[in-house]
Amino acid sequence: MEFKLEDAVELLSRTPGVLGALLRDLPDGWAALDEGEGTWTPAQVVAHLIHAEHTNWLPRARVLLAAGEAQVFAPFDRFGHLHTGQGQPLGALLDDFAAVRAQSLGQLAALNLTDTDLRRTGQHPEFGPVTLAQLLATWAAHDLDHLAQVTRTLAGGYREAVGPWQAYLRVLRG
Amino acid sequence: MEFKLEDAVELLSRTPGVLGALLRDLPDGWAALDEGEGTWTPAQVVAHLIHAEHTNWLPRARVLLAAGEAQVFAPFDRFGHLHTGQGQPLGALLDDFAAVRAQSLGQLAALNLTDTDLRRTGQHPEFGPVTLAQLLATWAAHDLDHLAQVTRTLAGGYREAVGPWQAYLRVLRG
Repeated sequence: MEFKLEDAVELLSRTPGVLGALLRDLPDGWAALDEGEGTWTPAQVVAHLIHAEHTNWLPRARVLLAAGEAQVFAPFDRFGHLHTGQGQPLGALLDDFAAVRAQSLGQLAALNLTDTDLRRTGQHPEFGPVTLAQLLATWAAHDLDHLAQVTRTLAGGYREAVGPWQAYLRVLRG
Repeated sequence: MEFKLEDAVELLSRTPGVLGALLRDLPDGWAALDEGEGTWTPAQVVAHLIHAEHTNWLPRARVLLAAGEAQVFAPFDRFGHLHTGQGQPLGALLDDFAAVRAQSLGQLAALNLTDTDLRRTGQHPEFGPVTLAQLLATWAAHDLDHLAQVTRTLAGGYREAVGPWQAYLRVLRG
């Protein structure tokens, strides 16, 4: 699909509702699942999304719009939420994420981005020049990436319980 | 996780809401995405879930409770929805799925299953003996499997648009 700002906004606006429908008030034990050593629980994923909202997407877009390729984006700490998001219950994290996402989308709309803006480039610390459209598409795809992760993590809770059906469930192979 | 009927019911009850939040009124083009030849659009996945609700989960549970291992489950046609679900718009399929899932959960509750029932076995056409608990756990895990599929399919819409970030997005590696 070609990048369209209104599609990306539509996808981004859905994620808090999807995560809420999937995760809020899960029965005991499910919210604490992860995929093994070094992987994240659903709560840690939501904390990561909140952290990215504060430090990654719109902040990088602002750097790109202000300085073009002249200023390299600050590296994004993909584990930053592990310091800041500790101990908050999942319900509170879902509320926070919904609030910061709504705020981000309000700020994004206020930028009144044009097609020319979307083609502008900034400087990624590893990739070099990237366009604003690529950054915004990644914001939406990153939501879907973590939604797939949370779904896989929950499914893993029934890896043993499904018995022989494990062979038919791709989400349990990963 | 150990299988608990109330957990499975809780997971099963969430799926229509999750799919609705993710898929209802998607912008043009997104609902028509698939993952290539022989794969399914989000609408086809929802049609498959409806078909499975009618012919797979509770029907097999009833056979197991009535006949134990004496009656082999009818094979489930994993492509049956491709004949029956054709042409319905995604919104109508989401409505249908929510209705049939609510009906199934009402019927499941009416079975008043005991722990002894959950340990009873039926005869799977390929696997041989399976317990009712395994069948019901698979029902819930199958939802999550297809939710992961739909999420992956949507993310694939931005495979090109994300540019170099593709390398960071597991959901795009497949």
